[in-house]
Amino acid sequence: MSPTIEIIGAVAAVLTTASFLPQVYQTWKTKSTESLSLPMLVMFFIGVCLWLIYGFALKSMPIIISNIITIISAGLLVYFKLAYTKK
Amino acid sequence: MSPTIEIIGAVAAVLTTASFLPQVYQTWKTKSTESLSLPMLVMFFIGVCLWLIYGFALKSMPIIISNIITIISAGLLVYFKLAYTKK
Repeated sequence: MSPTIEIIGAVAAVLTTASFLPQVYQTWKTKSTESLSLPMLVMFFIGVCLWLIYGFALKSMPIIISNIITIISAGLLVYFKLAYTKK
Repeated sequence: MSPTIEIIGAVAAVLTTASFLPQVYQTWKTKSTESLSLPMLVMFFIGVCLWLIYGFALKSMPIIISNIITIISAGLLVYFKLAYTKK
């Protein structure tokens, strides 16, 4: 693959991954999870795991790295949702 | 690429793209955009555009299709943010 394309992929990975982090920070800080849907979070988490497998199959570093970080972010949101939701 | 990997990519695309739609629907329905950050939305939007270019370079249908849908979703959120934010 051309270096230009790898750079485009890397910038894409940084932008979409970074734009997800404020949500994680805000949820951790405010412990407010009312507007987060557990089925949606779980769906997203499984989706990101599959993207990671796909990234390995394509040997695409941008896909692999961004999805590892997003798995951690999404995993934290699932945890917050379960931990902070009032019974 | 093996059909199995293409299927994994397709399922990944459906899950992560679909998990984004409730946010769009909720924002449209409630017109509540306080918790959405415009710089973050713009960052995400640019990131998704770059992923689309990357997907074309890789000739990956899951990446291309999911990012076209996500560009529409993210574009709508940017529009809602601009349209609904009280001056």
